[in-house]
Amino acid sequence: MADVTIDEQRFRQRFDEFNEIGATDAGGVDRPTLSDENKAARDTLVEWFREAELDVRIDEMGNIFGRREGRDPDASTVLFGSHVDSQYNGGRYDGVVGVLGALEAIEALTDAGIETDRPLEIVAWSNEEGVRFQPDMLGSGVYTGVFDLEYAYRREDKDGKRFGDELERIGYKGEDPCEPGDLHCYFELHVEQGPFLEQADLSVGVVEGVFGFSWMNVAFEGQANHAGPTPMTMRRDAFVATADVTKAVREITATEGTDLVGTVGSVDVWPNSINVIPERVEFTIDCRSYDNAVVDAAVERVQDEIAWAAEREGLEYEFEEIMRVDADPFDDECIETVAEAADEAGCEYTRLVSGAGHDANYLNKIAPTSMIFVPSVDGISHRESEYTEWEDVVTGAEVLLRAVRKQATA
Amino acid sequence: MADVTIDEQRFRQRFDEFNEIGATDAGGVDRPTLSDENKAARDTLVEWFREAELDVRIDEMGNIFGRREGRDPDASTVLFGSHVDSQYNGGRYDGVVGVLGALEAIEALTDAGIETDRPLEIVAWSNEEGVRFQPDMLGSGVYTGVFDLEYAYRREDKDGKRFGDELERIGYKGEDPCEPGDLHCYFELHVEQGPFLEQADLSVGVVEGVFGFSWMNVAFEGQANHAGPTPMTMRRDAFVATADVTKAVREITATEGTDLVGTVGSVDVWPNSINVIPERVEFTIDCRSYDNAVVDAAVERVQDEIAWAAEREGLEYEFEEIMRVDADPFDDECIETVAEAADEAGCEYTRLVSGAGHDANYLNKIAPTSMIFVPSVDGISHRESEYTEWEDVVTGAEVLLRAVRKQATA
Repeated sequence: MADVTIDEQRFRQRFDEFNEIGATDAGGVDRPTLSDENKAARDTLVEWFREAELDVRIDEMGNIFGRREGRDPDASTVLFGSHVDSQYNGGRYDGVVGVLGALEAIEALTDAGIETDRPLEIVAWSNEEGVRFQPDMLGSGVYTGVFDLEYAYRREDKDGKRFGDELERIGYKGEDPCEPGDLHCYFELHVEQGPFLEQADLSVGVVEGVFGFSWMNVAFEGQANHAGPTPMTMRRDAFVATADVTKAVREITATEGTDLVGTVGSVDVWPNSINVIPERVEFTIDCRSYDNAVVDAAVERVQDEIAWAAEREGLEYEFEEIMRVDADPFDDECIETVAEAADEAGCEYTRLVSGAGHDANYLNKIAPTSMIFVPSVDGISHRESEYTEWEDVVTGAEVLLRAVRKQATA
Repeated sequence: MADVTIDEQRFRQRFDEFNEIGATDAGGVDRPTLSDENKAARDTLVEWFREAELDVRIDEMGNIFGRREGRDPDASTVLFGSHVDSQYNGGRYDGVVGVLGALEAIEALTDAGIETDRPLEIVAWSNEEGVRFQPDMLGSGVYTGVFDLEYAYRREDKDGKRFGDELERIGYKGEDPCEPGDLHCYFELHVEQGPFLEQADLSVGVVEGVFGFSWMNVAFEGQANHAGPTPMTMRRDAFVATADVTKAVREITATEGTDLVGTVGSVDVWPNSINVIPERVEFTIDCRSYDNAVVDAAVERVQDEIAWAAEREGLEYEFEEIMRVDADPFDDECIETVAEAADEAGCEYTRLVSGAGHDANYLNKIAPTSMIFVPSVDGISHRESEYTEWEDVVTGAEVLLRAVRKQATA
């Protein structure tokens, strides 16, 4: 195939212009799902899709599609994209590089006069972040049949506003059914949100799959008493037990030879007073690995540690595993397509797995899927300081272009 | 001296009637300082003082005094009492037993036709609890010169209402200067708020002094990152370090041969999200002992542990000791007076020190002082389930009566 490259200058101009929408003083963007800023970002995207002569389609979930037909009217579609909603005061790269990179990939082919056999379709999924409406990945979730449309419409933000109503308010409740057409495969270019690529000094990661994880809610209940007159031997301190479990989680994850990560992320203490022994603590544990057996073992070990800590401190406890998601290996052929595309783009890459979930996880349930990662400086994401070297963003888009072209060409 | 005993039945009736004011469904009382319920409790107290033919006086801080003159018009006063403000949804005994017990002590003497050389004066201090207006022990603090009157008036509750305005609103901003007259000594009967007396199966504790303490604020600052893709070796987790320090506080207090107690009571985590590594944790440490050198050593050791935990986890930290109060031994003669009174009352007692602070601490700065403790079942206080066996309350009042009479009689 004749070599084609993306228009780096146009990509940069669009990236900068796009991120003026909802820009924050600290260099990030604030465009949570279905906000006015999210609407403005969507409007710009639709305008650019139309300028690129793509066939624009909005589905019932507000997922935005931009399609270029292929030579074969019966061929299934090569779908690729990401999302344009952001965290509250989030970063400029998360999601955006995948959608604007996808637009550049199609335009590069069009500019070079190159047709494909299969149709190419870009997608910008609704509510990937899940910060205003839970759960996250709602647009791709409905699209792939994980959630009902009505369930999604009923999701409420903290002000009691419903997803369906807000979608209508911003004018993005489309007519098209939110369901997959005939898909050939799905690709997504995204920032890594971890430090591996930067540490290895590589521009691209070929993503072979996504970690499985367990989310656990724990509550310890002891006895609130005055911090002065209550002797240490009589205490039933819910926070001391929480500290025990937190230390245990760190120890479990330090087990050699596993990729297990574990985090106590949310902690609430009652009555939370300087001179009162904590009566109740509610906290969360997040454990992840690419090996389901490792997550299984970690959850069991964590439960043992909770029971032991409660016994040592004389506490009642509640334990609930609120979510369990298995590790999700991507499609072998799609993975190899991305690897070949990276070779052709002349970049140095590694194969890795993702610690975080993506829309690609849901797409992987219904179509062959893989992802392309570009580095996150210092592993930072979901913050205004999120940053990726521009040349790495361009390299990622070059790999996406080549992977898409390969799969779309008979 | 001829033996006199208090009228147990009247004491019980008054105690029950008093605790109907602001009574909660769960058996406690809700009479925080300067609330309408606190006003109603004050009104009842003043009414009973007048019925007992006491000379009632309200000072500028709303401290309520009820005085019975002695034979010697030049003699200094024997002051005794406690407080009638409560915690939010607090218990029925804390403070109340000391004030109503004092009233019964004077009435027992009056009923028996017994005069004293010195004047007897009961006091109900304003804002001992410090739950609505900080700091606590505000009424006795101004009385003893620890705080300025204007400082006290400017204290604001969480709705921005000022102590001085609220005092005026309930009609208890008195004319009398808030300053001590000529004091001979001060006694206070109070619930122990700890488990020692109950465990030792004793009715009374002769209080020899109060623990010193240190209050510390600590903040750890790390880096918020996604709980999935961030490897354990790259984490700067502010909550893991908090767990380290919490475990260290427990270890330090387990040192044999000291009375040191230590508590991590208040903990706030940012961003407090299930899948984000904690970036910042602010927490408090409370360390107490009757030996100032033990508190000194604990504070030093705690600072070392904070520094080590920050270094291990790669965090910045802030440390501030926000309050340090030395251990406060009471007056030898007053302690012996209480011990002799307990002997005369025929009760079994022990000598102990208090882990919690009381108005008696401030009074001890300006006059010979001691306290009488009665047991707290299960060591519980500041809760609706706070409970003391009625016969122990009566015994405590009998001891108070005898101690007061001894000091008031030449």
